[in-house]
Amino acid sequence: MMEAASGAKPLYLDDLAVGDVFISDTHPLDAQQIVQFASQFDPQPFHLDADAAQDTFFQGLAASGWHTTAITMRLIVQSLPLARGVIGAGAEVSWPQPTRPGDVLQVTSRIIEIIPSRSKPDRGLIVVECITSNQAGQVLQRMVTKVLCFRKEG
Amino acid sequence: MMEAASGAKPLYLDDLAVGDVFISDTHPLDAQQIVQFASQFDPQPFHLDADAAQDTFFQGLAASGWHTTAITMRLIVQSLPLARGVIGAGAEVSWPQPTRPGDVLQVTSRIIEIIPSRSKPDRGLIVVECITSNQAGQVLQRMVTKVLCFRKEG
Repeated sequence: MMEAASGAKPLYLDDLAVGDVFISDTHPLDAQQIVQFASQFDPQPFHLDADAAQDTFFQGLAASGWHTTAITMRLIVQSLPLARGVIGAGAEVSWPQPTRPGDVLQVTSRIIEIIPSRSKPDRGLIVVECITSNQAGQVLQRMVTKVLCFRKEG
Repeated sequence: MMEAASGAKPLYLDDLAVGDVFISDTHPLDAQQIVQFASQFDPQPFHLDADAAQDTFFQGLAASGWHTTAITMRLIVQSLPLARGVIGAGAEVSWPQPTRPGDVLQVTSRIIEIIPSRSKPDRGLIVVECITSNQAGQVLQRMVTKVLCFRKEG
């Protein structure tokens, strides 16, 4: 199944299968957004100032990894319309390369495992691999996250 | 070693040992911050509106997990003064319980492993467990992250 899910009907555990893929909208990122996020949450020279960033590990302005994650979450909320919301229990995140001003982010989410709850028959966990790429197809972030998912009632 | 690290001198790989602990400043969180972050990055009813949140899984307004992570990053930047900055390669994050309005967040970071680079003698990775707690000592987030760390030059 390949979905462009904006406005799609809510999804329950019963609607999902391993291998299902969801493609998000895109998010264009610019230096202003990068600096604004970093000022609040990750105030380091390579996230705050293009000139100061030249002499750092990043050799130029780069977004906080957590900014990439936050934008990814926004794109997942839009593209994976789980009934009762996207509620994560946890995640593994890595950043193969920096997110830069001018990158246009898009998330491809793939269901890689479905784990019914043993104690609560109305729910389960879905394990979702979410790849955040830019317009050149470069992978900016890999995330594997466990997300709560409910069954249809009655 | 137990450090309150604001204004402390920059730390190199050579300065660190497994078991070292760093305690951050505190960050008081309120509903306005929760809603502001969620509006931008995680626009779901349980993060946006206290009334709408009552009938959800969270039974009341809760911060986006990624908001807790972002605040945690800010507190780590302040409390773990690595030379050349705090540059994460990746992380595992879980949220044992929701972060709520009125919570005062504080991060305790403990170095659990040091991995010298095989190919680049000037650097290594430190594996850091970062526990984000509230004023009641409840654990809001557990994170284990691999962070780049440089040796003193020459």
